[in-house]
Amino acid sequence: MTVTAPSVETLASLRTFTIELPSWAFGNSGTRFKVFAQPGVPRDPYEKIADAAQVHRYTGVAPRVSLHIPWDLVDDYADLRRHAADLGVAIGAINSNVFQDDDYMLGSLCHPQAAVRRKAVEAHLRCIEIMRETGSRDLKIWLADGLNYPGQDDLRARQDRLTEGLAEIYAALDPGQRILLEYKFFEPATYAMDVPDWGTALLHVTALGEQAMVVLDTGHHAPGTNIEFIVAQLLRVGRLGAFDFNSRFYADDDLMVGAADPFQLFRIMNEIVAAGAHAPDSGVNFMLDQNHNVEPKIPGQIRSVMNIQEATAKALLVDREVLRAAQLAGDVLAANAALMDAYNTDVRPLLAQFREEQGLPADPMAAYAASDYAERIVAERVGGAQAGWGA
Amino acid sequence: MTVTAPSVETLASLRTFTIELPSWAFGNSGTRFKVFAQPGVPRDPYEKIADAAQVHRYTGVAPRVSLHIPWDLVDDYADLRRHAADLGVAIGAINSNVFQDDDYMLGSLCHPQAAVRRKAVEAHLRCIEIMRETGSRDLKIWLADGLNYPGQDDLRARQDRLTEGLAEIYAALDPGQRILLEYKFFEPATYAMDVPDWGTALLHVTALGEQAMVVLDTGHHAPGTNIEFIVAQLLRVGRLGAFDFNSRFYADDDLMVGAADPFQLFRIMNEIVAAGAHAPDSGVNFMLDQNHNVEPKIPGQIRSVMNIQEATAKALLVDREVLRAAQLAGDVLAANAALMDAYNTDVRPLLAQFREEQGLPADPMAAYAASDYAERIVAERVGGAQAGWGA
Amino acid sequence: MTVTAPSVETLASLRTFTIELPSWAFGNSGTRFKVFAQPGVPRDPYEKIADAAQVHRYTGVAPRVSLHIPWDLVDDYADLRRHAADLGVAIGAINSNVFQDDDYMLGSLCHPQAAVRRKAVEAHLRCIEIMRETGSRDLKIWLADGLNYPGQDDLRARQDRLTEGLAEIYAALDPGQRILLEYKFFEPATYAMDVPDWGTALLHVTALGEQAMVVLDTGHHAPGTNIEFIVAQLLRVGRLGAFDFNSRFYADDDLMVGAADPFQLFRIMNEIVAAGAHAPDSGVNFMLDQNHNVEPKIPGQIRSVMNIQEATAKALLVDREVLRAAQLAGDVLAANAALMDAYNTDVRPLLAQFREEQGLPADPMAAYAASDYAERIVAERVGGAQAGWGA
Amino acid sequence: MTVTAPSVETLASLRTFTIELPSWAFGNSGTRFKVFAQPGVPRDPYEKIADAAQVHRYTGVAPRVSLHIPWDLVDDYADLRRHAADLGVAIGAINSNVFQDDDYMLGSLCHPQAAVRRKAVEAHLRCIEIMRETGSRDLKIWLADGLNYPGQDDLRARQDRLTEGLAEIYAALDPGQRILLEYKFFEPATYAMDVPDWGTALLHVTALGEQAMVVLDTGHHAPGTNIEFIVAQLLRVGRLGAFDFNSRFYADDDLMVGAADPFQLFRIMNEIVAAGAHAPDSGVNFMLDQNHNVEPKIPGQIRSVMNIQEATAKALLVDREVLRAAQLAGDVLAANAALMDAYNTDVRPLLAQFREEQGLPADPMAAYAASDYAERIVAERVGGAQAGWGA
Repeated sequence: MTVTAPSVETLASLRTFTIELPSWAFGNSGTRFKVFAQPGVPRDPYEKIADAAQVHRYTGVAPRVSLHIPWDLVDDYADLRRHAADLGVAIGAINSNVFQDDDYMLGSLCHPQAAVRRKAVEAHLRCIEIMRETGSRDLKIWLADGLNYPGQDDLRARQDRLTEGLAEIYAALDPGQRILLEYKFFEPATYAMDVPDWGTALLHVTALGEQAMVVLDTGHHAPGTNIEFIVAQLLRVGRLGAFDFNSRFYADDDLMVGAADPFQLFRIMNEIVAAGAHAPDSGVNFMLDQNHNVEPKIPGQIRSVMNIQEATAKALLVDREVLRAAQLAGDVLAANAALMDAYNTDVRPLLAQFREEQGLPADPMAAYAASDYAERIVAERVGGAQAGWGA
Repeated sequence: MTVTAPSVETLASLRTFTIELPSWAFGNSGTRFKVFAQPGVPRDPYEKIADAAQVHRYTGVAPRVSLHIPWDLVDDYADLRRHAADLGVAIGAINSNVFQDDDYMLGSLCHPQAAVRRKAVEAHLRCIEIMRETGSRDLKIWLADGLNYPGQDDLRARQDRLTEGLAEIYAALDPGQRILLEYKFFEPATYAMDVPDWGTALLHVTALGEQAMVVLDTGHHAPGTNIEFIVAQLLRVGRLGAFDFNSRFYADDDLMVGAADPFQLFRIMNEIVAAGAHAPDSGVNFMLDQNHNVEPKIPGQIRSVMNIQEATAKALLVDREVLRAAQLAGDVLAANAALMDAYNTDVRPLLAQFREEQGLPADPMAAYAASDYAERIVAERVGGAQAGWGA
Repeated sequence: MTVTAPSVETLASLRTFTIELPSWAFGNSGTRFKVFAQPGVPRDPYEKIADAAQVHRYTGVAPRVSLHIPWDLVDDYADLRRHAADLGVAIGAINSNVFQDDDYMLGSLCHPQAAVRRKAVEAHLRCIEIMRETGSRDLKIWLADGLNYPGQDDLRARQDRLTEGLAEIYAALDPGQRILLEYKFFEPATYAMDVPDWGTALLHVTALGEQAMVVLDTGHHAPGTNIEFIVAQLLRVGRLGAFDFNSRFYADDDLMVGAADPFQLFRIMNEIVAAGAHAPDSGVNFMLDQNHNVEPKIPGQIRSVMNIQEATAKALLVDREVLRAAQLAGDVLAANAALMDAYNTDVRPLLAQFREEQGLPADPMAAYAASDYAERIVAERVGGAQAGWGA
Repeated sequence: MTVTAPSVETLASLRTFTIELPSWAFGNSGTRFKVFAQPGVPRDPYEKIADAAQVHRYTGVAPRVSLHIPWDLVDDYADLRRHAADLGVAIGAINSNVFQDDDYMLGSLCHPQAAVRRKAVEAHLRCIEIMRETGSRDLKIWLADGLNYPGQDDLRARQDRLTEGLAEIYAALDPGQRILLEYKFFEPATYAMDVPDWGTALLHVTALGEQAMVVLDTGHHAPGTNIEFIVAQLLRVGRLGAFDFNSRFYADDDLMVGAADPFQLFRIMNEIVAAGAHAPDSGVNFMLDQNHNVEPKIPGQIRSVMNIQEATAKALLVDREVLRAAQLAGDVLAANAALMDAYNTDVRPLLAQFREEQGLPADPMAAYAASDYAERIVAERVGGAQAGWGA
């Protein structure tokens, strides 16, 4: 329990640690029951990027924005890229969306009919073209494919179709580009998802080759699943390509990361830090994937970014020599205590100091609140259709 | 294992057993990701009732249709009531919807602001007026109220507000009218629902009085919950007012009832039959609450109705003397076998015979498919906005 | 995020807050696969109480020990009571055990045979006699009763038998004595527990009368259950009699409380503090119910006691005016932040100060470790049978 | 719904389909709370095999018995093998037990200390010797290894140790012998299991080589997991080595297979039959792994064997052409109905006929009950220690 005040130097490796923001987090979102509109919400990808740039401005840790295609279709990606650069951010991963067209009702890459599968492959090839135009490294593939009823389709045949479709997409990658394959336990399919777990995702990316990696969305697991174990396992086999961070109490709630179980977030970041995977050359892309249904979007993202920073800072405080000694000695209580000591430390003062040293506001939430940005966008963004889940 | 062929007379009590259909099952539905449109979908409450009447026509067991307000708002309920009667059905429960107006983002009856709570109470009072116009007995209240984040509001204060709001609504009931209060484990709220479990629902209906009952939606429980236990418990205290039947693998999937776990449906109906609660005077309203996201709606409802009939028929086959003797003797295997013998019996031939005796088609699915109704509505229902989740 | 250093005076109400220890936590325990023996483990109730007194000695917060009957049967309870008093502690709740006799294979108070039910009632009456001899206020009843297979017994009849048995036990209580009825979602029964949820427990205690209350064991819920909601609800109806504290990742893991989800423990204690139920006159008995399968027992208990203190201290730090204002304003982020600010504060220095002011060691774990008690009991407790789960 | 009476010839492939019995199912078992003794329970491996032979005698489908070492240690395995052969059965898989020795408290193959890992490797090498003596093909490895607390040990280092230990065991296999690696979601470890999921098991067996396969225990998954998907996936990659069949409502309940969710068992067998994996040359070993805590053991096993036969028979009734056509046409209801038609068929009369054609009793439960075996073993097996969980 005796924690000496840690030095800000402990956080040195946080200087190069970055988090990628999702463009869709700035649009309206909701549940199947209702999407609640908020004033000032962006009406196009340019405004989404502008909002994301605010998060980076106040936190200094969020220099990239993921796009979702076709939600973020624009005429000129070179122009969008310039727009982002002007605002101090870059375009990150391109997310393919093959689940909101009527043709995809029964699937996309796994659909029983070849014509739909072809359409879904083409949609991905178009995403790769956009990646070239935006300078994106990562094509993130999350498929809503699955079955609502037993018997609805052949579970195994769908895997074969998936293998075939992914292979064609993979073949179109440039060197240096990557496929990030995401898995999800359930939803929207209610009986079987075609990529429900990390085992399935790993089988597919391994079959594809070195440029394919697994994405771990922290909200996409069965109740009780030990997520940090999966993190450790995927790091061990060199296939953890990215996170989609969010938090959940029940299903894929897409809450602010760290809001539901901050200790779990710490344990996850502890595996990352223990493996040195928070370093930029680890190849792990730390992304948010959240919806802010009832809270304002920009501060919701700022808070999420800070939550990850805090969890990572705590992981950096773990005394790994003490921990390892206790583990090898079989001293259960001491080993657990070594971890908990770091978790129970309040790292907020240290992070405030860390930010100030980098010329950032000590308190990003307060700094954003003190700006007039929120009022400004409410005043300016009048007319036009607000961006939302599905637009 | 020795099951002698059961006589159709075993099913005698099925003759008065009825199932209520939800008007919204005939409109388009989907998940938060996408609502898929189907051709021929109703464009107004009149067309929804027409479709529901088809289910009754071929099964003979579904003579009522629940409405959802404001989805099913019309100018003249007397006229809608006549329309239903002309088609051989009646209007059943009125469902209040206080979750799709922007004012309800943070709740309705539990909202922190009195003005919103007032609006929500008024919405219910309007429903009671509609009940008078439609001759409905039941006001079904399902609240989307809840919290997404810890601390967002005061859990206990919200219960107090709920108590107050329900009391005002209850006071407006005519004699013979009932409040049916529904509980739901999670969704749309992601941290806490204000009526998450049967215990909470029971506390509220008990406080209200004799005209308030609990609704059990079979999809609204935590994983692993023993639903038939709750059925038995609510019957025992005389507060099981209704079912919302559907089935689920994970969350509130709203699949056709019996599709995910037919054995569970049987166990539920077994508790009902053991208590004689399938009789019309039991006060239990057997309703469907389902979405047909990827399958056609009318046959989806027919199939659901048949699944309940089959489960109930199996429950009627249970040899209760044999069962009880084995239970009292502590003969675990024999007692379990007595139940399983009934479950493992194929009751479809018996039900075919039962239907024919009542002048109904032996195979309702085939009979509907042989009609031209599906083609007809596709051809006729052109133009106008299709009804859907939320309309 | 701006937390000013809290004063130790904030913790004033902690001075009268106490935690009760379970005698069985000091014996060997394990899983169905193996009970691992630890050196120095008590061989009788006297030695268990001696170990429990160590926890109180170093924490100052654990002045009572619960007994389990028949595990803790002794010839002379007056003598045991004196022994406890000599060591600075008192005997707390008496736990009835009606699940480890062969007669109870198919249940105790719910058993289909009257003779077994009688035996189970008698066992409880004997517990009440022991309560008189030990000066205990609380009879804690946890029943392992349930069914492994559907059909094995009649769910509803078992409730009726339970009602009858409890009534007879209740009638034997002295004024001032209480029944605490515990519920459990599953285990040991694998299909249905007879008291699976708080709703069932509440129905029974309400039927019994004012001297019957519900016990909430934090490990006895379905995955995803919002436990603080249940706490709030039971407080609201005046029926929260006690906690059995422990923590869990999956099932009823009986880990040190706060070890699996410290944020949940904080949320629970936040409901307690918000209602003032941590005050001694609230009638809530804060008990531990844990097994230390792989860690040493005495420090495991010390750590658990400290975890509850830390969670309670954080709850005392919540700025309730700020919280309430944000809630009423519908400011989701600010309200959540008000809670999280308290949670994220490191209260260990404050608690160290709090302990020192009371003449206690600032670091109870270190103080116990520095004593020679552990070595002493290993050396002294040689021969005889170690106490364990079931002895 | 129009099912024509199926011919017994549909079940032709059942003639070579066999199920392996676990020796431990015939001993006493229970939960962590209590093991209930039953009269007539075996006192040694010889008597266990005798009881298993009874199951085969009446069902004709259970010609092998798995052993558990050291529970089933004998002096002379050649003699035990002859004993089995005399009774018409053979010795099947050898199960290693490295979880019931005090040394294994913190793990076996994953233990932080090399000496314990060595002991665990040696225990497996001894099992391989026994396999040579008994003529067993399969070494089944289920490890209780895991952690109770976060930080207790290094998740990733444990995987490395596991890889090393398994490699040494694998190297000792004879050609034709196999390692079957089992995974388990939780229990006995309460925070992390070292082989928690099929992905981890698959990574290890793939690293080992062609003679290593995955075992799927139907009770070892998170709530909601789609087990038939895993079956299909493991078949697809050629690594499904065996099943441990049982059923569960909550945790690893080890109930009679098919007792909790018979529809799930059918869906599993449907994937098996669709892939032809019920044929003897598929390499899939269909084993039971159950405890009969409250029901008699021999009829419990007979019933389990029959439940698998019934599920498999139903899977054989699926009209795969109709199913496939509906699937390819995207006819959700028709595809689901094709599956449900088979499931809803009562195959018991057909199986009775099937058995009689093979000279077996039509009703194995009744035939065993009519024998005096149960009475005989109660009378004969007096004195000595009953075999049980852990003996």
